This record gives sequence, C-alpha cells and structure tokens, in this order.
Amino acid sequence: MTEQRQRHIYLETKSLEEARDLFLGAFDLAGRLAEEEVPVEAALGRVTAGPVFALDSSPRAHLAAMDGIALKAERTFGARPDRPAALIEGQDFQAVNTGQVLPEGADAVVMIEQVVAAGQDEQGRARIELEGPAFPWQYVRKLGEDLVATELILPAGSPIGPYELGALVAGGVYNLKVRKKPRVALFPTGSELVSLEQVRERGLGRGELAEFNSLILAGLAEELGCQTVRFPPLPDEFARLKEAVGRAVADGFDLVIVNAGSSAGEADYTAEAIADLGRVLVHGVAIMPGKPTVLGQVGQTPVMGIPGYPVSAVISFEQFAAPLLARLLGRPIWPRPRLQVKPLAALPSKLGLEEFIRVKLGRVGQNVVAVPLHRGAGSITSLTRADGIIRVPALTEGLEAGREAPAELLRPPDEIEGTIVAIGSHDNTLDILGDLLRRRDARFGLTSGHVGSLGGLKALARGQAHLAGSHLLDLETGQYNVSYLRKLLAGISLKLVRLVMREQGFIVAAGNPKGVKGLEDLVRQEVVFINRQAGSGTRVLLDYHLKQAGLDPGRIEGYGQEEYTHMTVAAAVLSGRADVGLGIRAAARALKLDFIPLAEEAYELVIPEEHFRSDKIQALLEVIRGREFRRIVESLGGYGLEESGRVVYEQ
Amino acid sequence: MTEQRQRHIYLETKSLEEARDLFLGAFDLAGRLAEEEVPVEAALGRVTAGPVFALDSSPRAHLAAMDGIALKAERTFGARPDRPAALIEGQDFQAVNTGQVLPEGADAVVMIEQVVAAGQDEQGRARIELEGPAFPWQYVRKLGEDLVATELILPAGSPIGPYELGALVAGGVYNLKVRKKPRVALFPTGSELVSLEQVRERGLGRGELAEFNSLILAGLAEELGCQTVRFPPLPDEFARLKEAVGRAVADGFDLVIVNAGSSAGEADYTAEAIADLGRVLVHGVAIMPGKPTVLGQVGQTPVMGIPGYPVSAVISFEQFAAPLLARLLGRPIWPRPRLQVKPLAALPSKLGLEEFIRVKLGRVGQNVVAVPLHRGAGSITSLTRADGIIRVPALTEGLEAGREAPAELLRPPDEIEGTIVAIGSHDNTLDILGDLLRRRDARFGLTSGHVGSLGGLKALARGQAHLAGSHLLDLETGQYNVSYLRKLLAGISLKLVRLVMREQGFIVAAGNPKGVKGLEDLVRQEVVFINRQAGSGTRVLLDYHLKQAGLDPGRIEGYGQEEYTHMTVAAAVLSGRADVGLGIRAAARALKLDFIPLAEEAYELVIPEEHFRSDKIQALLEVIRGREFRRIVESLGGYGLEESGRVVYEQ
Repeated sequence: MTEQRQRHIYLETKSLEEARDLFLGAFDLAGRLAEEEVPVEAALGRVTAGPVFALDSSPRAHLAAMDGIALKAERTFGARPDRPAALIEGQDFQAVNTGQVLPEGADAVVMIEQVVAAGQDEQGRARIELEGPAFPWQYVRKLGEDLVATELILPAGSPIGPYELGALVAGGVYNLKVRKKPRVALFPTGSELVSLEQVRERGLGRGELAEFNSLILAGLAEELGCQTVRFPPLPDEFARLKEAVGRAVADGFDLVIVNAGSSAGEADYTAEAIADLGRVLVHGVAIMPGKPTVLGQVGQTPVMGIPGYPVSAVISFEQFAAPLLARLLGRPIWPRPRLQVKPLAALPSKLGLEEFIRVKLGRVGQNVVAVPLHRGAGSITSLTRADGIIRVPALTEGLEAGREAPAELLRPPDEIEGTIVAIGSHDNTLDILGDLLRRRDARFGLTSGHVGSLGGLKALARGQAHLAGSHLLDLETGQYNVSYLRKLLAGISLKLVRLVMREQGFIVAAGNPKGVKGLEDLVRQEVVFINRQAGSGTRVLLDYHLKQAGLDPGRIEGYGQEEYTHMTVAAAVLSGRADVGLGIRAAARALKLDFIPLAEEAYELVIPEEHFRSDKIQALLEVIRGREFRRIVESLGGYGLEESGRVVYEQ
Repeated sequence: MTEQRQRHIYLETKSLEEARDLFLGAFDLAGRLAEEEVPVEAALGRVTAGPVFALDSSPRAHLAAMDGIALKAERTFGARPDRPAALIEGQDFQAVNTGQVLPEGADAVVMIEQVVAAGQDEQGRARIELEGPAFPWQYVRKLGEDLVATELILPAGSPIGPYELGALVAGGVYNLKVRKKPRVALFPTGSELVSLEQVRERGLGRGELAEFNSLILAGLAEELGCQTVRFPPLPDEFARLKEAVGRAVADGFDLVIVNAGSSAGEADYTAEAIADLGRVLVHGVAIMPGKPTVLGQVGQTPVMGIPGYPVSAVISFEQFAAPLLARLLGRPIWPRPRLQVKPLAALPSKLGLEEFIRVKLGRVGQNVVAVPLHRGAGSITSLTRADGIIRVPALTEGLEAGREAPAELLRPPDEIEGTIVAIGSHDNTLDILGDLLRRRDARFGLTSGHVGSLGGLKALARGQAHLAGSHLLDLETGQYNVSYLRKLLAGISLKLVRLVMREQGFIVAAGNPKGVKGLEDLVRQEVVFINRQAGSGTRVLLDYHLKQAGLDPGRIEGYGQEEYTHMTVAAAVLSGRADVGLGIRAAARALKLDFIPLAEEAYELVIPEEHFRSDKIQALLEVIRGREFRRIVESLGGYGLEESGRVVYEQ
C-alpha cells in the first residue's frame, strides 16, 4: 500500500505564478474560440469578438435638443426687446420637440420659454416674436455628435453590459459578432459523492456526501460567460475517469475539469489519466488551500484536476481556470479591489506555501480589522462569510499582529464600513442580531469573532472591536463582567448593555445515556467531557464550579479537548465524540440534546463610549430592544429577556 | 401652443434625496414580493426570502482530513522511535483516504507518510509501526466543524452567488425560498421610435430612431435580478399611454416605467397619465442629466416616467428604480466604490442641479486624472467610455481645476492603474492603438482626451498626462513640434516619438459640389466652412496657410463654428452643415467624402522620460512598431508609416 502511494507524491511543487504561466503558456488561446453573430437583444453578458465600429452616426440627423421652435438663426440676428424679430409659422419657423429632426434649412432651436406669441397673420398662421438673436446651431444635437459612422464603439474583448447595448444600437449595430461561450466540462469524482438528483430521491447514506463543488464551479464559470456541463459523480475508478476525460476532449469542450481525486491519495487518478492521455504540466502548486492542483493538456485541450475540498476547489478555479477562460474569451480579468487591513491577531502560515486566509472585515476607528475565519479547506462557510482574503506570501511564516496587510475584497467597501465588529464570547443570539440588523437597515451588519469573553475585552483595549460579548463571573462577588471591566478596561469610557440572561448547563445526548446529573459526574471514568477554550466565560464558569466543589480538572477525561462555540460543543456530544459538555440551553435544544442546568448567567455587550453613539450601534440597540428579537430568541429556549437592551453599568 | 405647454413646467423640482425618499416611502416594499421555492441548482443570482438555517451538519460525520490510517489515538500513546507502536490492519487501524468517514471507535488519523510498513501477521493482515503517538482528533474533520445543523447559513436578503450554492448544500439545504423576481414593465414612448424588430425588417426612415433605451433599462433591471417586459414603442398619444400604464398596473407588474415623454414638452403625457390613474409624487428632480423624471403611484404600484435621453434614462433608473427594486427584493444595494481624482480642467456646473459628469480616469504619478467626456445627456458613449462618474453637488457652480473630488468607479481600480492617459491632438489611429494595446496585454489601455496639440503640451507640463499627441507646425522653421517642446516643456526630459505622417486637406461632400480646389475657395460667399478649435494643430495649420495666402479669416463663413475632432468635422460636411472643413484624409475616407490635399504633416507623441520606461508605454511602443498597427492604419488611407515608433527628438 505504502509503496503504491509514494509515486503520487507531488514531485515538483510549483509557485502560483510559475504554475499559471506554464498552464496558460501551453495553449494558443487568443482567437481560438469561434465567433458567432447574435442580435444585440441577446448580447448582454457576452464579449465582443473583434472591434465594433459604428455603421450609422448618432444622432443620424440634426435634432432639436429642446422643445421650442426651429429656424434659420440668421432670421433673428439683430433682434432686441425693443425691436423683436417677428416670425411666421411654416414660413420662418416650425415648432419642434426635443429629439425631432430639424426641418430643412433650419440651423437653430429657440426654447419655447423665449417665444412670445403674437397672434396670427392674415392666412391664420401663428405669429411669434423673439426678443433676442439665436446663434447658429444653438440647442441642436448635431449629426454624429455622439458617434460618427465608422468610429469605434467597442474594442475587441469588451464585456457587453447594459450601457454597451445602447451604444451599439445608437451606432446602427443591430447584430454583432461575439465569442462563443467557452464550454466547460465538470467531472466530480469520488465514490462517496451523490448527485443532488439522487439525494432528493433517496437521501444520503452514512459516509455519503451531496456533491456540490460542481455547482460552485459551474456558477463561477457561468459568471465569466461560459456554458457548463455538470456530469454525474464518477466513482474512484481509473478506467472510467480516463474514459470520461478522453470523451470530453473528443467532444470539443474548451476546458475539462476533474474535481477531487487530485490529492496524493490512493484515489488520485487524475494526474495519471491526464498523463496517459496527454501531458501533465503541473502537479502540485505551492498554495494553501489548493496545493494538490493538477494542470495538464490532452491534445490542445486544457485539463485540470481540481482538489476536492470546496475552498481548495474555488481557489484552484479562480487562480487557474478563470484566467484561462478569460484569455479564451479575449476579455480582461481584473484582480479584486484591495484594502489595507490589520489582522486581529498574528496569522502564522506555513513557509513555502502562499496561503489564502478568509477574513471578516470591519472598520474600527482608523483601522480595518480583519477577523480570520476557519482556515480549513473544507469550510465553505469561510468563503460565504468572508469579506475578504488575505494572501500570506510563500516566503513568510505568517503575518505579525497589528501589521497592515492588503486584503482582496469580496464585498463592496461600503458594506465593510457599515459592519459592527463584535469580538468576544459566542452566543447563538449574535447571528440573529446580525440578521435583524441587516433587515432593519441594509447598510449595517454584524461580524462576530469568537475568542472568548476575556479575548473580547483585550480586543476592545487594543481598539480592535466596536463591542465585546462577555459573561465573566467574578469568582468573589458572583457579579458578571463589572470587575473585569474595571480591571482590564480601566480608563476606557464604556457602557455595559445586557443582551440576555441565559442558562448554562450540561449538554448530553438525548435520553442522557450516561446518567449525568451534575458536576461530580464529570470525573466518572466512563464519562468523556468536551471543554471550551481557556479565556471563555463558559470555561471560567466551569472552573469556578469545579473549584467550589473541590474537583480536580485532571481527573476529567477530555478536559484538554477544546471547542470555540456552544454549537460545536453540542455537535461533539451529538456525534458521540464526547458524552457531556458545558454550554447554553439553546445549543442543546437546537440539536435536540438533553440539558441539565447548572447556572443562570448574564450575557452582556461591552460598548466603548466612542462607538456607542454611532448610527450602527444605535440601530443595533434598537434591534435588541425590539419585539422581533424577543420573539425569535424566546423560541430558542433558555433565554431571559427582561432586561435586554438596558445599560446595566457604565464607566 | 405656449399656454398649453406652460402647465407642464415642473412646478416643484425636488432634490435627489428628497425625491428618492418620497418615492421609496410611498410604498410598503419590504416583504411585498412573494416567495417561491427553487432547487438550489436554480438559485444562482436569486435573493434569499428569509434566513436559511442548516438542516444537516457539515461534515455530517467525523471525516479523515488526510490520506493515511484511522485509529484510536490511545493505542499509540507512548510510541517512540525505539519503541514503536505495532498495529494490525482491521484490528487496530484502517486505511482511510481524505474525506472518508472514520471507522467506529477511531478518533485520529495518522498521515500515510508516518506509517512504517512491517510485513503481515500470521493471518495475512498488514502490520505497521508508528514511531510516535497520535493525538486524539488529529487530522480529523469533526462533525459540524463547518456548520452545525440549525446554524444560520444565509441571512434574509442575501444575494446567492456560487459560494453560497456550496454552503447551502453543505448545510443540507437542497431547495430554498427565494424572492420572486420583480416584474418590470418598460414602455418606450415617442412617435419617432422604431422597435429593433421593425428596424431589421424595413430600416429607418428620416427622423426615425431605433429604440434602445428599453434594452439598457432591461439590462440594468435584469442585473438586479428582475424579469422585464419590453413593450413596443407607443406613439405620443395620451389615451394610449394611459391605457397601457393602467393595463400594466392591472397585470400586477411590480414597477412600470414609461421612457421618454417625461420632459416638459408637448408630448409629455406621462405625468398626466399617472395623475389621472393615481398620484404624481415627484415631477422634476434637481439632477442633470435626469431632471424631467416623474415618480408616481397608481394604486400600490410604483410608476416612473424616465426621461428620453439615454444618459438621463440610466441615471434616473439607477437613482430611483434600482433602490426601489433592491428594497422589493430585500437585498442591499451598495454605492459604487469611490476614488479621489483630479479633473483635467475646471468642471463648471449649473447651480441648483446635482450633475453627473462621466469621466475617463488614469493614474499619472501621484494623481488620478479625470478627463471629462461629452456632457450631453444624449451621449450614450459617454457611459460606455467612462471609467467613473464625478458628482458635482447641487449647491456648487462646479469643481475647480486641480482640486480633488471623489469619482464613483465604473471599472476596477486596476484597470485605471493600467490606463495610459493621452491628452492632446486627435487622430483616428489613437482608437486603434488603444484596441491593439488592450489585445496585446489586457492590463493596459489608452484613454485619449482631445484638447488639441497645445492643450496636450500644457497638460504634460502640469503632470496630467503620460503622453500628448501633437502636430504643431513651427511657422518659421516649417518643422513639427520641436520648437514648441523647447519653449513649453523646457526643463522636462522627454522623447518625441513619430506616430504617423498624415495628409491634411479639405474635406468636402462627395463629388465636391461647391468645386473647392484650395484655400481661396473658403472665402467664396456660398461656401460654408467648419473650423477646429483654437489650439489644435489643424487650426494652427489653417491659420498658417491663410496668413501665407494673405486671406482674412473674417471673410470665411463658419470660421467661428468649431469642432474638436476630424471625425466631427467630416460629419458636419456629410450632414450639409458645412461645405468644407480642414482635416485628415482618413476622416474623409471613413465617411466616403472627397478630399483635396493641402499638406503632409507629422503626428507625434510627446512622452516625458518619467513615463517612457514604464511597462505600459513600452507596450504601446511595441504596438506602434508592430505589423498589425501598420496593416490597419494603411487601410485607413492618407497615412505614412515609414518612421512610426522612431524617437525623432529628445530633450
């Protein structure tokens, strides 16, 4: 087994730039894609195949630019209030509306507001007077003013948006040549994968996974203007994979993507299939996620092996497939806008790999704070939740805390400006707050970083957050938070706002199979515990109660296993990884687990005075005090809302 | 006539904010749009109707995060190189690949690289050794690590992109509720408008215009996630318009847009139709373009009268329809990113109107230079050519030269960084250069501002351009450009690069009906001339020859009528506005006009040394010296390319 695997190990990992140059350089991409003529009505989102020149001028004739009368300007020369020019309709002038063609001979328009009616002449024609002269070509849109026939409307490779549709028609172009849409074949591989169609039919068995990477990749390709075919998942069989790739190449797909099966594992047949059919250009790129990318060619067709983790798949696609497809289309592809940000804490990273770290962003004072999300390549939510991506260069071991770094933006800058950065303890109501805040005012949002109550207070002290969620029990007074604020945030004016009261207790499997009744059960031999991280309020609570009860943490199996949120503690219990964890009732209830109450505690928001008056914090407070928040939180169970939104302390 | 019109004059022009608040505030938009359930495969580009929660956890079970072996970590405790843990397949461990579910009882994965093969046991089962301990849960993706069932995947009002599709399926959401697409009815009005279908059938008559605003507006609405119906153009008849609007409202359209017929002109029936059927909320907004916007309601349906000029239509849509549609969808809408820019020259603007000035942008040294485009609302190309929009506030009379102002970006910042700013004389080859440059390297582009040769040199002196196109004849030496550079750009190191030699001469109608043979014909009574602006090389050339010939410019009819490019001069001749103009042969040839040569001149690029070595200028020089440029320019006629790309002078 071991030997067989060895040969798959990436022999030569290439840098991102080197790999991309090798891949894009292997094909003669420009102009390869055929052209097709489409009516302008069907051209939105397409890309011009060549430069498009105006066939007609715009305007096509001299047009009135105002409502009024059209005349030969000469007829008005010398007109003054005391010696107005008298004009007769049909003979000296004609009424025109904006956009009408100037009558033959006319070279100026006088605005209706300047026309003085003066009865009729003997033939019943309208007479008017003008008290000043008109200049030749005044209020006239001259033929070709916007576009002269033969002028360039759009260069080759222009993406066609709504404005472009108008310019094309204005220039007399009713049909035009665009690049055909590149056809992309997507082959998910993996015996554990089940297509969505099948999932709907028969559900998922143990060890099975609903295949979704092809949906993401197809979406990305379609946004670039491609046509995609998502094939049903292939099992991990070399012969079938090779046959499928060969057929897609023969069918004339412009890019063939095999997803997963590209790691160095047993089921890695992609590189071999490409090597058998054609040539592997790159196997392994020094990026993370995305390292096991395979880039190759079969005949003149580019074939990629994209890794199976969703974030790896996205990054591999965006770094290699997207520029290839753009070059096929002859259109430019631009890097995302960037912003200088400061990571919440140091971001260590592996030397030799360029890492793509997904971050939440929010402006706190002068800085944009970056809160790193889950760094695992399996975490697709690290992309949906991210506001940006920080790239840690391959030749560093990470980014220092407090040092600015550029982040590529996934969202508009104004969204980042409107984000409240909440760093501290985790509570299930924070997501609800964020959702309601956005619904109340689309400009605002809430980002929460879960570093525990103490971590939140430290972030406030460093000016890294607008607020911190905290539930720190003072072991001496039995009071929440206040003594910690006095100590850790001395000198900072702030308000402490009650968010909720909540029940903490033991989360156990449904039916409580291990018969956990209280603290003393944690030290029983057969009971496995799952803990929260040091510095979290829940950990403080646990340690306080253990000390009170005189129990030695060293005797608790699993005390060293830490999770960062109530929900992951509950998930650990649900999955059988642990028998019991300490957490809030809402988490137990969400996963239909049993709950043995230990204590009621105050979960509060610490908000420095300098942020308290801001529009976004005020909007947040209104949400907290509102009926909808109350209604939803009550439905979660285990929460008390009597004093929600009240300022319980200030300093 | 005059009286009848008076009543249409906007009685109360509202500010942009006031008008928008009145319009959006008149309707209860949130939640009005029905929901529909769609399969996740069809959800790209849609907007979530409510918050979406995970129905399943992701991962759904504990999964191997590496290729290797799965085991109970305990079995390896105490392993050391000199005392390895010996394990038997099937009994102590199982081989796993990345993504596979951990076997029952296993809680850790050891990477294949750390596994030492050690033969087989007596039953033929593989034996291995580990030289170090495994920690519990190492290389395991734990159940719910990314998403725990019941957790929020997407808040209400989230636009669904490719990443979101993946997160939904990961969370077990295979179908979800999205907002129905708002239905938008588009009614072009104007007796001069012809639908594209009809244009294709029978062409355009004099005074007719191919209707395209509805294409632009439909594109904008579709990009926001709407469904649109483009109705055929309506004639300027009150009864038909009113009937059409009434029917669209009855049909349940979510927004009804009447395009054109909204000015204060004779054909302005939109406001009246809305007033008859419902209520006019706003008639006239203090913006330019876009002033004659009408905002109203018929029952609970918003109805808009959008002005007829394409730029007015776009701005009116973007300022009023877009936020309304976003609110219907419950999705956020973000302002465009902004950048501080410096206008090339002062931008005067009318007090009391907020003006939207379309500009080309390019970074020259420390500043981003903004070159204003055609300000007429009829110029759709001012939108397709624009990189950004500068908004001049209503309460100013414009922006001073050299003062920074924010521009809303229509293109990515990197595109602006890659743009060469060419300010100066106009030549038809500049567009070709820009197109070829972009095709050569998609990062680069060329923006040209036509302010004449002298204006270009002044722009260089002020550091506002990377290069200037110039063809200034020294009246004494007969040499081009050099003496001007010595005088106007003394102290600036620069290179003068020959672009082309070109023929200047008299552009006359085909067949030369006025029999123009030379300079002396310009002063003939029946000959109308069209001039170029002062400071242009062509004007200098004309004045030089007039002086040589002893002809008085005052005797030339039309000498005071100025155009800014060769093509608009040619268009003036084509349209009969003038009989003759001075310009390049290529312009005459493009419009199939006759041409009487006057002189051959050098058209050259003045490039300061500080920009000369940049990648983009070097790429431009390669284009100029390339075969493709030569081929295309030769086909235009009237150009000499012998020395194209040569540095003819430096200082």
